Amino acid sequence: MDGMVHVYTGNGKGKTTSAIGLAVRAAGAGLKVYIGQFVKGRKYSELNSLNKLDYIDIEQFGKKNFIKNKAEEIDIQKAKEGYRKIEKVLNSNYYDLVILDEANIAVYFDLFSVEELLDLIEKRNQEIEVVLTGRMANNKIIKYADLVTEMKEIKHYYKKGITARKGIEN
Amino acid sequence: MDGMVHVYTGNGKGKTTSAIGLAVRAAGAGLKVYIGQFVKGRKYSELNSLNKLDYIDIEQFGKKNFIKNKAEEIDIQKAKEGYRKIEKVLNSNYYDLVILDEANIAVYFDLFSVEELLDLIEKRNQEIEVVLTGRMANNKIIKYADLVTEMKEIKHYYKKGITARKGIEN
Repeated sequence: MDGMVHVYTGNGKGKTTSAIGLAVRAAGAGLKVYIGQFVKGRKYSELNSLNKLDYIDIEQFGKKNFIKNKAEEIDIQKAKEGYRKIEKVLNSNYYDLVILDEANIAVYFDLFSVEELLDLIEKRNQEIEVVLTGRMANNKIIKYADLVTEMKEIKHYYKKGITARKGIEN
Repeated sequence: MDGMVHVYTGNGKGKTTSAIGLAVRAAGAGLKVYIGQFVKGRKYSELNSLNKLDYIDIEQFGKKNFIKNKAEEIDIQKAKEGYRKIEKVLNSNYYDLVILDEANIAVYFDLFSVEELLDLIEKRNQEIEVVLTGRMANNKIIKYADLVTEMKEIKHYYKKGITARKGIEN
């Protein structure tokens, strides 16, 4: 059966974590999972756990600090490197689930175009289930996807002045 | 610092998986995690992965099949057993993050009352971070929580006739 294309977007907490949870579920069923993280280059705590699990491979294609306002040359370079790697991953017969974390943000910052992202997904081995995460999902992606969930922020504790905490936010 | 109270609710995919992803992140940072699953009694694939990770303990307090329309005596009995167990967990000094998966559904089906759930959270060791998941979050819970994300279904493939698949939905 063809794999579905999921999108987790919106301004609320829970997009990357839901993709990670799905990876953990899939690996528990013996499915092989690849996680490619765009825009991110810092060592999030989940990497320590995911590296202990068979069937989950994870790679990062971003610099240590998040893009502020405008992408730099290094951001584009790393994203394009990731794009080429993921092209191979999506055309192999090895993985069952491929997560492109922050792919929406990569398009939003024009690290590659929405057409390039669609091309990657359309030309993949169609048996692979694909998950795209990140705010600001492009309308063309939403239209193409089989499943779209908007993580909508109803209330967030950063408004109380709580900043990112190890193990919870990063 | 006091732990926050998160709620992941709404009709979209990604509530339980985001809680699992958070558990995996927290465990990767060396935090100790307890996951209590209400209403669920079947062996989801993620259990195979989570059982391999140190610092994550998981228990289920439901029967094998989901509640159809109305809770049976066995559902209430199992939920109350879970409630008593979690009361101990939330009053200990051992865990850093406690996830009450489907707690909102437990309240919705009146397995225990919203006041009982609030009481559990209010009287806890306040250093513990708490996550509640499930559709139909009660307004009193939303009001009490520090962070609320609504997982909003924009599009779902079950409308294409795709049913639950091992490793993706369960």
